[in-house]
Amino acid sequence: MPADLLDRPYVGRFVDGAHRFAVRVYYEDTDAGGVVYHANYLRFFERARSDMLALAGADIAAALTADEGGYVVAAAEMAYRAPARLGDALMVVSRLERVRTAACVIQQTVMRDDQLIAEGRLTVAWVGPDGRPRRQPKQWIHAFQGVQGSRTDA
Amino acid sequence: MPADLLDRPYVGRFVDGAHRFAVRVYYEDTDAGGVVYHANYLRFFERARSDMLALAGADIAAALTADEGGYVVAAAEMAYRAPARLGDALMVVSRLERVRTAACVIQQTVMRDDQLIAEGRLTVAWVGPDGRPRRQPKQWIHAFQGVQGSRTDA
Amino acid sequence: MPADLLDRPYVGRFVDGAHRFAVRVYYEDTDAGGVVYHANYLRFFERARSDMLALAGADIAAALTADEGGYVVAAAEMAYRAPARLGDALMVVSRLERVRTAACVIQQTVMRDDQLIAEGRLTVAWVGPDGRPRRQPKQWIHAFQGVQGSRTDA
Amino acid sequence: MPADLLDRPYVGRFVDGAHRFAVRVYYEDTDAGGVVYHANYLRFFERARSDMLALAGADIAAALTADEGGYVVAAAEMAYRAPARLGDALMVVSRLERVRTAACVIQQTVMRDDQLIAEGRLTVAWVGPDGRPRRQPKQWIHAFQGVQGSRTDA
Repeated sequence: MPADLLDRPYVGRFVDGAHRFAVRVYYEDTDAGGVVYHANYLRFFERARSDMLALAGADIAAALTADEGGYVVAAAEMAYRAPARLGDALMVVSRLERVRTAACVIQQTVMRDDQLIAEGRLTVAWVGPDGRPRRQPKQWIHAFQGVQGSRTDA
Repeated sequence: MPADLLDRPYVGRFVDGAHRFAVRVYYEDTDAGGVVYHANYLRFFERARSDMLALAGADIAAALTADEGGYVVAAAEMAYRAPARLGDALMVVSRLERVRTAACVIQQTVMRDDQLIAEGRLTVAWVGPDGRPRRQPKQWIHAFQGVQGSRTDA
Repeated sequence: MPADLLDRPYVGRFVDGAHRFAVRVYYEDTDAGGVVYHANYLRFFERARSDMLALAGADIAAALTADEGGYVVAAAEMAYRAPARLGDALMVVSRLERVRTAACVIQQTVMRDDQLIAEGRLTVAWVGPDGRPRRQPKQWIHAFQGVQGSRTDA
Repeated sequence: MPADLLDRPYVGRFVDGAHRFAVRVYYEDTDAGGVVYHANYLRFFERARSDMLALAGADIAAALTADEGGYVVAAAEMAYRAPARLGDALMVVSRLERVRTAACVIQQTVMRDDQLIAEGRLTVAWVGPDGRPRRQPKQWIHAFQGVQGSRTDA
């Protein structure tokens, strides 16, 4: 019984270069239309993206604490395909589509079993404490390329 | 002194066919990066869009209560140009770009004085209580076209 | 026509020592139960409280920027009396109940016309950049006491 | 390797009658003060409470879908003891303090290792589709009392 696993925050896992992150829909996520509020998919995406990058080797919180910089979302394209409802078990699947010097492009989908619920392409830019774009930490870029490679090799 | 005006919720106003809606940045809108959290611009946009449509003649809440249907966001393209911070006075400018039978495309920007902070193009689809796309109320379509016209004529 | 007023963020106003702040309920505020999500009343309260303190003379954002400190919520007691729904026009009424050296106690209610929707008592503590309690700026304490006085004298 | 476990949403677990639910702090949870925004602890509490009740046998989402009723928060007393920050691994510990005919009182704390971050006492009332208080499903009351018993026996 993986009891100790249940005492640490859930982080999802990589399967064939894609990060899989399960999410339950709570009241906080829904709106009076009875469905998940559209902006909240961006919150699901942030959770999954953070844990994907952490598993790949990027400690974002430590970088913020050390005043080294942080990721900011530069662009987001979202398409909403089907509604999700209270209690649904969703799966956020995230893929590092492109790793550039100062930014990553991440493709993210929300699935409910085999049904596509929502999909997005997020561009996150690394910025210094002054808010200006900056080269991502070099070891992170290597780590991210490794994750990409595992996908293309799969 | 427009005291009674201050006792009703703020709704913004139309200027030359564009809806202008001022927003103050509170702690709830920000994140640990010291800036407005990216998903929260979609909340600003929803507020402005709702009041724009209400001023144009669409009573969304009444339609929901009467179980006639509601708008759902079908797509959103967001670009984040500059950070906004706690206490900033922002202006959300919304324009009805296209009015289709079952959907509207709305172009929305967030300005801080003359600086562009964020911009988005939102597609909202009208759906029935069953969640399926449906023709928007006919009188609303007319009203929305009137708003568009006032812009192109300006 | 107070057009320029509509181009600045809404801040509410004081009436007899109580701050009145009107809020419209949007989809973002609601949940799948069809009502305002309970945690979101704390967001309404923060907006109203911030603008009340600003009108009273406390520029919280400037203090944060100058790294002088900020208010943190130390305690909140909430009672939910009746549901609020999409499109409702609510009024948040806030009163400075106690002004202490390092904290303020604020009593806040949400009304829909004459009906009590929710009420809360919030204790906000002033903390330095190190997160430790600290004496509030002296001129703010004086200003807050003036607001309280206007209530008791009314 | 409990791989399939990682493909289902995390639900926490019971230990000696208390429900333990681990939470990671993401940007969405924080504010410009660099800490978790006070209202968001109520979101953490809702997630933990929902999963506690689900593990105890109450399928809230099914009840909502069947139009049988739902829980609404009737009261919340919150005390914030220490700030939590981006990346923190928190543990929400929830205990069913009282099970009444139409309501439950739940005591919830947020810990970071051995440090108390926040604590709350939430009263959730069961209401029918008309929004009026109603007796909780009888089998749920029994199930909840079993959970309480396991605590007092520990």
